[in-house]
Amino acid sequence: MPEDYDEAVDRIRAWLIEHELEDRCRLAELVAFPSVSSDPSCGSATKSAVEWLAAEVRRVGFTDIEVHGTSLYPILTAAHRGAGPEAPTVLAYGHVDVQPVEPLDEWASPPYEVVERRGRLWGRGVTDDKGQLLMYLRSIEAWLETAGSLPVNVLLLVDSEEEIGSPSLPGFLDANPWLGEADVVAVSDSPMLGHDVPALGYALRGLLYVEVTVRALVADVHSGQFGGAVPNAARVLTEMVAGLHDDTGRVTIPGFYDDVVTVSDDERARLAALPFDEEAWRSGLGARCGVGEDGFTTLERTWIRPTLEVNGLVSGHTGPGPKTIVPAEATAKLSCRLVPNQDPSVVGTLVVEHLKALAPATVDVTAAFAISAGAVVTDTAHPYVQSALTALGDTFGSQAHLIRDGGTIPAVTMLQQAFDLPALLLGFGCPDENKHAPNEWLSLDHFRKGPEVLARLWAAIARSGRPVLTAGRPPSATATEGE
Amino acid sequence: MPEDYDEAVDRIRAWLIEHELEDRCRLAELVAFPSVSSDPSCGSATKSAVEWLAAEVRRVGFTDIEVHGTSLYPILTAAHRGAGPEAPTVLAYGHVDVQPVEPLDEWASPPYEVVERRGRLWGRGVTDDKGQLLMYLRSIEAWLETAGSLPVNVLLLVDSEEEIGSPSLPGFLDANPWLGEADVVAVSDSPMLGHDVPALGYALRGLLYVEVTVRALVADVHSGQFGGAVPNAARVLTEMVAGLHDDTGRVTIPGFYDDVVTVSDDERARLAALPFDEEAWRSGLGARCGVGEDGFTTLERTWIRPTLEVNGLVSGHTGPGPKTIVPAEATAKLSCRLVPNQDPSVVGTLVVEHLKALAPATVDVTAAFAISAGAVVTDTAHPYVQSALTALGDTFGSQAHLIRDGGTIPAVTMLQQAFDLPALLLGFGCPDENKHAPNEWLSLDHFRKGPEVLARLWAAIARSGRPVLTAGRPPSATATEGE
Repeated sequence: MPEDYDEAVDRIRAWLIEHELEDRCRLAELVAFPSVSSDPSCGSATKSAVEWLAAEVRRVGFTDIEVHGTSLYPILTAAHRGAGPEAPTVLAYGHVDVQPVEPLDEWASPPYEVVERRGRLWGRGVTDDKGQLLMYLRSIEAWLETAGSLPVNVLLLVDSEEEIGSPSLPGFLDANPWLGEADVVAVSDSPMLGHDVPALGYALRGLLYVEVTVRALVADVHSGQFGGAVPNAARVLTEMVAGLHDDTGRVTIPGFYDDVVTVSDDERARLAALPFDEEAWRSGLGARCGVGEDGFTTLERTWIRPTLEVNGLVSGHTGPGPKTIVPAEATAKLSCRLVPNQDPSVVGTLVVEHLKALAPATVDVTAAFAISAGAVVTDTAHPYVQSALTALGDTFGSQAHLIRDGGTIPAVTMLQQAFDLPALLLGFGCPDENKHAPNEWLSLDHFRKGPEVLARLWAAIARSGRPVLTAGRPPSATATEGE
Repeated sequence: MPEDYDEAVDRIRAWLIEHELEDRCRLAELVAFPSVSSDPSCGSATKSAVEWLAAEVRRVGFTDIEVHGTSLYPILTAAHRGAGPEAPTVLAYGHVDVQPVEPLDEWASPPYEVVERRGRLWGRGVTDDKGQLLMYLRSIEAWLETAGSLPVNVLLLVDSEEEIGSPSLPGFLDANPWLGEADVVAVSDSPMLGHDVPALGYALRGLLYVEVTVRALVADVHSGQFGGAVPNAARVLTEMVAGLHDDTGRVTIPGFYDDVVTVSDDERARLAALPFDEEAWRSGLGARCGVGEDGFTTLERTWIRPTLEVNGLVSGHTGPGPKTIVPAEATAKLSCRLVPNQDPSVVGTLVVEHLKALAPATVDVTAAFAISAGAVVTDTAHPYVQSALTALGDTFGSQAHLIRDGGTIPAVTMLQQAFDLPALLLGFGCPDENKHAPNEWLSLDHFRKGPEVLARLWAAIARSGRPVLTAGRPPSATATEGE
């Protein structure tokens, strides 16, 4: 293991530049799999993406490579334990599944092809998460090719059900306690504060996804012959969904905020001082003005407050042109982002019970839950948090910030629950990168810097050594809004 | 021309029974064209359906057959003027286009195949309107084959844009004033009061169709990274649509009811006395209880009251599984059924202006109108109304009722506007026949009786002779709700 990390990093950076073209080709190969985990018709592509990654991991030099079958899509594990038992062990988590690509006609280039335009790489999964996952392999290959060894041990855990809430992972973690060897989890699946503004995430919101279906009739009926005298599922659904927020932007569901931990004034002050360019953020979205819960800033609304969003609506005729029916059925896809200490199952029950209470007696209401994960917070006093800030700052050449993230990575919640591991959220995306939407992109600059940050991080964690005691969880929160 | 109509009708009935199999095969051929006029991908099938009908009309014995090109789909005209200038002339109107067949998985048999089950013929268009249109050809062929002539002159007008509001028809009627030779319009495109309960329709509601789209963002965004701080188009749309009705079932749009003609107490009493089996009607629909505007019966809600129905909702992710986005755009397909004297363009403006008033400043609202037609009422004192009641009663063996219809046939409105013609609505459907919905059907019994009613009607109209003066319109209504 080289003692002079700076020299090692110089060699790594040179190696990364030299091999960039190959790395971009590999990303293009992985993006080409339409591995949409929510779409059963993409099942074989999702499995093929995992197999492709297993071969790539073998090429890089990992051992103990295993593709574990689950009741749905496989989990890939691999290890590189060359640093020895005294060295820290990092668990690197990423996923090869992606979000649906619809609406297709809004993509400027084919979603499953990686295209470079305006200093960005475009394609489904380039940032979420295929592109960021491959950064781990590149940082490790760079160490092995330039120094012949890695300063830390690495366990690799690759999911292909992340976008549907990682349903197979809890059982898998129970059956594979060896993953608890790790001292820390590193995940790159989130945005930084802005382009070229390095930041480390220490918190994620949780998620609760539920599809609510209203059925009013046996089948759609003619809106002339029956309109005016039968319940209209679409109209009933709009009335129910419209009743979920009040005029101040608060969710009206009784008890919704009861378990929300009050964030300290100190932390709110720190978040308020971040170099967040709200005007740029807003104009990139086309949102006329910031909206949300009264009394909170934009960052607070996305980071420390729970939400209820409508993700999709479908009822009756959705094709082109008119069709004069009273729809029998209407569905809303709803999701809540949760904060500490909201329990997804408790909140899920509150949401569904409230919707049923809002429904008239003329309809049946059914609910199906899809994803559920609690929020995650890592103690910012953990020594590896400092290691990550250093690696980020040294690579980007400016001070790295501590940020939260409004998104959810269910696996991080599960890993914290299973092994009490602190999580480093080393996102290399940008806030306006169209994650989950058409025209997803990753900055070419971040594509280049990400592996360097990770390569530096392995060295910084090695220097810090194994932690004396696990400090993954912050002190138990006590003050909640319901008290 | 035989003087003994009873004998002529006996021969016609025998002929119809003898040729039923051929008639069913012809219906199957016409249903096989997926002539969905609202779907551009069905354009060539729609044109082919018209061509098929032109050949069929020629085979039956019509002359002056013309397929008129329009900017969209063709209009077919044909004539049979053998009864001479002293005899009455009937304008028979029907259409060969159909409603979309989605959702396909709810059909028990393929939509474009005619299948017989449980005494019914199933398939898209068997009742609306291919099956009923072909009844005219059968009634005419039966007269020609059994008596060698027709007691009335017939002008045939076949539309292939009815389900999208007959946009080409007004211009066509302007350019073809010869259609005004007719003394009456006969249309079979509506249901009777119930199975084996003969009825003649004398009124149709009008229709106004509008698609309202809310746009809140440039593109869909990640509901974790942005949720809580950006406008959600789906949520905004639900709030707008939910604001269109009050708790009494009335439309809240200012001015919506202003021009509604007050229906007389006498007519309401007559409607209330109709043999309408509300429990059977309700249980066939699966509707838990009758709902609608307070103060009106079920028949009144569907026949004499204007409505606003949501025909479709679409926003964000509508495919299988979860997708965690804040939708950029949301669309509601809305339609109003109108009554005399509501002007579709006036009501359309009121609807859109009110929706824009309900929208927050964070979104753009756009509206696109698709169909527009005023309501139609024929004076029940017209002698041909009695002719039709006689033909219905004689065929079904029971007294025929005078009913209204909640649906809209824009062509009937246009024909009344162009030529001031009374309209006879000789519907042979049933109220629960799944018009515009999956599993559309036509009673086999009505399939057999319809042509007999029409054959008797031609004789009854001939007996009545040409009307002395046009009595198509009821006396001008004066009392409206806005006054």
